[in-house]
Amino acid sequence: MLFSFQREKHNNEVSSSHRDLSPDFKEKYFKQILDHFNFNSLGNGTFDQRYLFTDQYWKKGYGPIFFYTGNEGDIWDFAMNSGFITELAEVQRALVIFAEHRYYGKSLPFGKDSFNIPQVGLLTVEQALADYAVMITQLKEELGAQSCPVIVFGGSYGGMLSVYMRIRYPNIVNGAFAASAPILSTAGLGESKQFFQDVTADFEKVSPACRDAVKGAFQKLNTLAQQKDYRRIQSAFSLCNTPSTSKDINQLNGLLRNAFTMMAMLDYPYRTQFMSSLPAYPVKVACETMLNGTDLMSALRDTVGILYNSTGKLACFDLYTLYVECADPTGCGLGFNSYAWDYQACTEIEMCYESNNVTDMFPPMTFTEQQREQYCSKRWGVVPRPGWMKTQFWGDYLSTTSNIIFSNGDLDPWANGGIRKSLSSSLIAINIPEGAHHLDLRGSNPADPESVIAARKMESEMIAQWVKTARQQSS
Amino acid sequence: MLFSFQREKHNNEVSSSHRDLSPDFKEKYFKQILDHFNFNSLGNGTFDQRYLFTDQYWKKGYGPIFFYTGNEGDIWDFAMNSGFITELAEVQRALVIFAEHRYYGKSLPFGKDSFNIPQVGLLTVEQALADYAVMITQLKEELGAQSCPVIVFGGSYGGMLSVYMRIRYPNIVNGAFAASAPILSTAGLGESKQFFQDVTADFEKVSPACRDAVKGAFQKLNTLAQQKDYRRIQSAFSLCNTPSTSKDINQLNGLLRNAFTMMAMLDYPYRTQFMSSLPAYPVKVACETMLNGTDLMSALRDTVGILYNSTGKLACFDLYTLYVECADPTGCGLGFNSYAWDYQACTEIEMCYESNNVTDMFPPMTFTEQQREQYCSKRWGVVPRPGWMKTQFWGDYLSTTSNIIFSNGDLDPWANGGIRKSLSSSLIAINIPEGAHHLDLRGSNPADPESVIAARKMESEMIAQWVKTARQQSS
Repeated sequence: MLFSFQREKHNNEVSSSHRDLSPDFKEKYFKQILDHFNFNSLGNGTFDQRYLFTDQYWKKGYGPIFFYTGNEGDIWDFAMNSGFITELAEVQRALVIFAEHRYYGKSLPFGKDSFNIPQVGLLTVEQALADYAVMITQLKEELGAQSCPVIVFGGSYGGMLSVYMRIRYPNIVNGAFAASAPILSTAGLGESKQFFQDVTADFEKVSPACRDAVKGAFQKLNTLAQQKDYRRIQSAFSLCNTPSTSKDINQLNGLLRNAFTMMAMLDYPYRTQFMSSLPAYPVKVACETMLNGTDLMSALRDTVGILYNSTGKLACFDLYTLYVECADPTGCGLGFNSYAWDYQACTEIEMCYESNNVTDMFPPMTFTEQQREQYCSKRWGVVPRPGWMKTQFWGDYLSTTSNIIFSNGDLDPWANGGIRKSLSSSLIAINIPEGAHHLDLRGSNPADPESVIAARKMESEMIAQWVKTARQQSS
Repeated sequence: MLFSFQREKHNNEVSSSHRDLSPDFKEKYFKQILDHFNFNSLGNGTFDQRYLFTDQYWKKGYGPIFFYTGNEGDIWDFAMNSGFITELAEVQRALVIFAEHRYYGKSLPFGKDSFNIPQVGLLTVEQALADYAVMITQLKEELGAQSCPVIVFGGSYGGMLSVYMRIRYPNIVNGAFAASAPILSTAGLGESKQFFQDVTADFEKVSPACRDAVKGAFQKLNTLAQQKDYRRIQSAFSLCNTPSTSKDINQLNGLLRNAFTMMAMLDYPYRTQFMSSLPAYPVKVACETMLNGTDLMSALRDTVGILYNSTGKLACFDLYTLYVECADPTGCGLGFNSYAWDYQACTEIEMCYESNNVTDMFPPMTFTEQQREQYCSKRWGVVPRPGWMKTQFWGDYLSTTSNIIFSNGDLDPWANGGIRKSLSSSLIAINIPEGAHHLDLRGSNPADPESVIAARKMESEMIAQWVKTARQQSS
């Protein structure tokens, strides 16, 4: 689920009718401990961890700290796509910090050698959480903010980190807002077929015919592949090179499936920038494209082109540069961030999701624990440890914690891998019927559906309550 | 505070009038992950972790699991000195497991190379906790005990580990009984002079004259040392070799002070085995010896002889074999366990305790953060991180957890470094006026004071309640 956003200005994403909240983030670096869990390792030193910082709304020494637990990408991208946090900061006079996750963006512990073995070994969820714990503690001191409540925010994997910060460091974090955090399905809890079934459901919701068309197109491709009619496949999908092996076909299937995954996740009600520019309601646009084609396969090509060729400038699709296979069947993106995410999917984060062309519209593509182990051992020299996330981060056993919002959008294929029902009066599930992947974290937009406006209102009230209670307890 | 018990049979310690509970422990080994927090380190493998196990009381598949979180020593010693756990197991039909802490006893991850750099780097509190989490999870499966509640037990550092297991792994552990766990003073919270002040208080309680005599003896030693009258010091203290440097004098002071620490900690109402045999009420015996001597210095020598020369067979005291200076001013013991504890005191566990001859009866001996850093960097190539324990394990911020008993004996110099007041209805402090270091963990004895009998009763009831509640919640 790696994101590699195109850089966009915060105020590009909000309509001009909306007041301009574009925060004035300063980019800073924090001297961070390389290895929190070994005093005699190669990590016996520090690295520069990037963070963004704005105190323009802060009531110094009093207002809360809103801390974004950065996830798998460049921290600017999260800051520029999480306008809700700064809107809330203005209301609650909060200090805002966006911290970059180690091994992503510019926070590379060993520079260009970061993805060598063994240097890459210091990339774990536990190290990332300890980074944030140490950073919050030290920045509070430096800023005279010792008594300020801390609320963590995160979307997707970043939301998982927010949950984990609250459960592992309640001494440091007073509450967590986790938007679209699939804490169950990434801990090996749930069905392996759920994810692509839910991607399919989004397209089916627009029209069952859309789902059938996609399914039919993949079946046609499969028939041609079995006939080894590679020329016809190349021309139907405008591939730059003629496929020649089952590996190429597998790659093609992965690339095609990935476009649907992305459009389902990013099915926002307005135009957004992601990899390439996506139109408003991309799932609807995809279905229109799919159903208006002259034949199924070229319709499928044009549909995935919404993602891969939004400018229309690509003359052909290159199988191996547009999409990279990795240990995350929902995609690792491109560039060195993709190495980091692949490594995390090979070690702690479990995503053995499959499509099967029965409960979903995609070609049968398995990714079993065994396949994962084989791939990861070859690629990174590691053996994944199924069950580890559940042991470390409690799985669905959350009754002993408190002050967490689990928000999910019903359009988001990650939603059912998260917490969908409130677990107590302070472990709140907020479901947003018209929401895609962490829509509620984004800044307000005139095109927002009612459901996300209502969700943000509840979220805002709950966070204000946590801040108030934390202040009372510490005084 | 390292313990190196002499091996003793469980039924040696309880009087013959007490029913024989001597449990039939089987010794086993568990294939444990070497490095839980790095998939690409030198720890990319497993090691054999020892544990003791008895199911003689267990109602299979139903009775709770009582899991001792082993601390800084051979696990047999803890099993043989924690009879309360097996007494409770019989009542509650529990399975009993005593797990040995990595790098102690026979659980050496790299055999005889375990204390080399960098191999020693895998010795951390976090790794030890993860060992226990993984072991409990897997043994439950293997034994058909998936639905059995788990209660962790520990004394001293083992009690700290029990607390941490409950706060970090509530998904695995339903409650923790932490006897004499100084979770505050080892996290840098509290006064550096507290510990030796409280050792002193035990002797003062027997008689203020006793305290004055000890204080006076140390002052006399100091005067002789300043006069460089090393011959007289040798003869007064029956040293095997003539001291010749201030380092030797410092070593002598450390050795002498350590005997008082040990007698205060182990001030049990009956004879026990520890390093050498200790009489019942050793503090009282020490004061009698101290006050009945012909002169102060020989009285001091005879007093520390209660610990170092219980058999009376030592012809002289060897400064450097009876006591080893380390990063723990309360003692690291002898043998390779002492390397492990020294390393832990050099990395995570903070024990910068000082004596000053003003608030205590001992010679002025500082151990500042700076001295610690200097020593640890030279000895182990590590830089301690003050504040780390507080960040990782919450310090005194415990309001978000539950189901922990913090028991402490008023005679124990560690007591005031722990939790002395209940924090909620399920975070209970039990103070035992006549108790020394985790007396309540030991098996029942006819010489037990009323206060420890009452404490054990409360503890037993509370643990039964946790088990009952856990069973209700999981059904």
